[in-house]
Amino acid sequence: MMRDLPQPSAQALVPFVSVAEMMAIIHRIGLEEALKDLTDRIEADFRRWPVFDKTPRVASHSEIGVIELMPTSDGQRYAFKYVNGHPGNTRAGLQTVTAFGVLSEVATGYPLMFAEMTMLTALRTAATSALATKTLAPKGAHVLALIGNGAQAEFQALALKAVCGIDTVRLFDTDRAATAKCAKNLAGRGLTIVECDSAEAACEGAHVITTCTADKKLATVLHDNMIGAGVHINAIGGDCPGKTELAPAILNRAATFVEYEPQTRIEGEIQQVGEDYKVQEIWQVLTGQAEGRKDAAQVTLFDGVGFAIEDFTALNWLHDQVQPGAAMLDVIADPDDPRDLFGMLMRAR
Amino acid sequence: MMRDLPQPSAQALVPFVSVAEMMAIIHRIGLEEALKDLTDRIEADFRRWPVFDKTPRVASHSEIGVIELMPTSDGQRYAFKYVNGHPGNTRAGLQTVTAFGVLSEVATGYPLMFAEMTMLTALRTAATSALATKTLAPKGAHVLALIGNGAQAEFQALALKAVCGIDTVRLFDTDRAATAKCAKNLAGRGLTIVECDSAEAACEGAHVITTCTADKKLATVLHDNMIGAGVHINAIGGDCPGKTELAPAILNRAATFVEYEPQTRIEGEIQQVGEDYKVQEIWQVLTGQAEGRKDAAQVTLFDGVGFAIEDFTALNWLHDQVQPGAAMLDVIADPDDPRDLFGMLMRAR
Repeated sequence: MMRDLPQPSAQALVPFVSVAEMMAIIHRIGLEEALKDLTDRIEADFRRWPVFDKTPRVASHSEIGVIELMPTSDGQRYAFKYVNGHPGNTRAGLQTVTAFGVLSEVATGYPLMFAEMTMLTALRTAATSALATKTLAPKGAHVLALIGNGAQAEFQALALKAVCGIDTVRLFDTDRAATAKCAKNLAGRGLTIVECDSAEAACEGAHVITTCTADKKLATVLHDNMIGAGVHINAIGGDCPGKTELAPAILNRAATFVEYEPQTRIEGEIQQVGEDYKVQEIWQVLTGQAEGRKDAAQVTLFDGVGFAIEDFTALNWLHDQVQPGAAMLDVIADPDDPRDLFGMLMRAR
Repeated sequence: MMRDLPQPSAQALVPFVSVAEMMAIIHRIGLEEALKDLTDRIEADFRRWPVFDKTPRVASHSEIGVIELMPTSDGQRYAFKYVNGHPGNTRAGLQTVTAFGVLSEVATGYPLMFAEMTMLTALRTAATSALATKTLAPKGAHVLALIGNGAQAEFQALALKAVCGIDTVRLFDTDRAATAKCAKNLAGRGLTIVECDSAEAACEGAHVITTCTADKKLATVLHDNMIGAGVHINAIGGDCPGKTELAPAILNRAATFVEYEPQTRIEGEIQQVGEDYKVQEIWQVLTGQAEGRKDAAQVTLFDGVGFAIEDFTALNWLHDQVQPGAAMLDVIADPDDPRDLFGMLMRAR
């Protein structure tokens, strides 16, 4: 792309959505609009859940982190995401989680788009929480407690504002600087922001609680006595083996909903309880095959870990936003005669 | 990359080896030198086989093809390849197999390089055959029969010339145009080329036979009576369930060597025989843990299917060839404060 080389044919070129382009697309649409769109698209794909190939993510663990591949397909399109999780990265000024992904056509196996997915994952994670909250929260819920004010926090707040009518956000983080950052970022966006001194204080009066903390350990971010009747919880931060956020007693009181049960058993809050602990998959509530919230007093829990179908949805949504003039990658070898790869190489000399 | 957007930081940028750049690198080094280098690097990595994470590839099958992810890691570096296999693609002027891949650092999970891998896979597949041939062929072998003269053929011929001293190549393909293409491409490269009318004729006098046909079915490219004493066979084309090239009688006579037994049981020629059929992994021959060729009369078979470690090696080799000024992808969101992804998005407005 920067040297004087033969020009590739059109079939060789695949659109690439860089970080800068991703941000430009979000601003063109508007962040809250994008979060609403994504929530609708995730709901539509969850409603046709049985058509998707579903496999737990393929993880490569090391002592200090994990690299995962998350593939899925609906028979027409195939998508995968590459995502790492390295809690120690922030000490080196790097992101804990970075991601990129590819969308492909099943009929040919050819990629349709490469894309950054660090930003896109933040959006789809928030949109998934919004979908769970819309589906499970008590009627009239408008106060959100946000425990963990890191990279995901503002997206959660704005998705729940845009989709679920949240108007007040009560913030807490063990690091006050994170709370201050989050409060500053959310100022002037039509939300009442309350900075709190403890998780207990943040939960006071909240109808919805989202936990999105980042420590890779069995933590207790929420204690049982912090959860009043009727509250809906989105537990987002507990998303890999050995990383949880909730006291087990909360699980024993709550009706628990998950994305894909086999994966959540390994990665979610429910890794703390036995295999006989009953959960429902969210898509079953959306299609009427399972009951959602029973009454105004029930505690509902969305034990979110992030599933490949959400990334599939997000990449398909993003693909629809790519406009003429987008950057293209010369990544598909495209000889005139498909059997003559060698001739293509030699003619390039 | 083509619009007026904020400039990403250095940490956001990952080198990208396009198809054009890949071809330029091969020509800079020289194709036969590159094949020799790759063979040496694959041998070195096979010798430290036990340090690698090994999982069978993650395949998504449809009625007309397959999309696969092939990850592996040595604890320092992580690599994966995306590869499709769609035999019907050639009818639409598309490649049967296209591939791309990513090399990453295990310590941070950050990608180090994106690369086209259609061309690179052709090289590493040929280099792996050369390694198997160097290890298993009879002494003084210099005549190669090449059955299947498609996209992989010339690379096989030149790797076996460069690494194993092959000086004569006898060509056969059911499509005479493919043979003519291959003969033309190999002309003037220090090889005696013989175009043959049948697979039987091609095998006459050959010390080494490579089969690299493309049909996705149980075919019999080689019959038992075509295989003389002492011949070494590289069976490369039989590489997925339902796709084989050899008569089972050949398997019963030959000493068979594979890359990674659990994968080859599913994908290789040995899917035709029972689980009790004995094979050796090539790396065990290289490290002296298993016997290679016993004597000059033994028929040896390398049942090659392509394994993730070869792609890992190829990507690491390629990474060493990337020079300053290479194209870079803005694919890693890199906020000043890692917890402030939202702030980065807002400042880009």
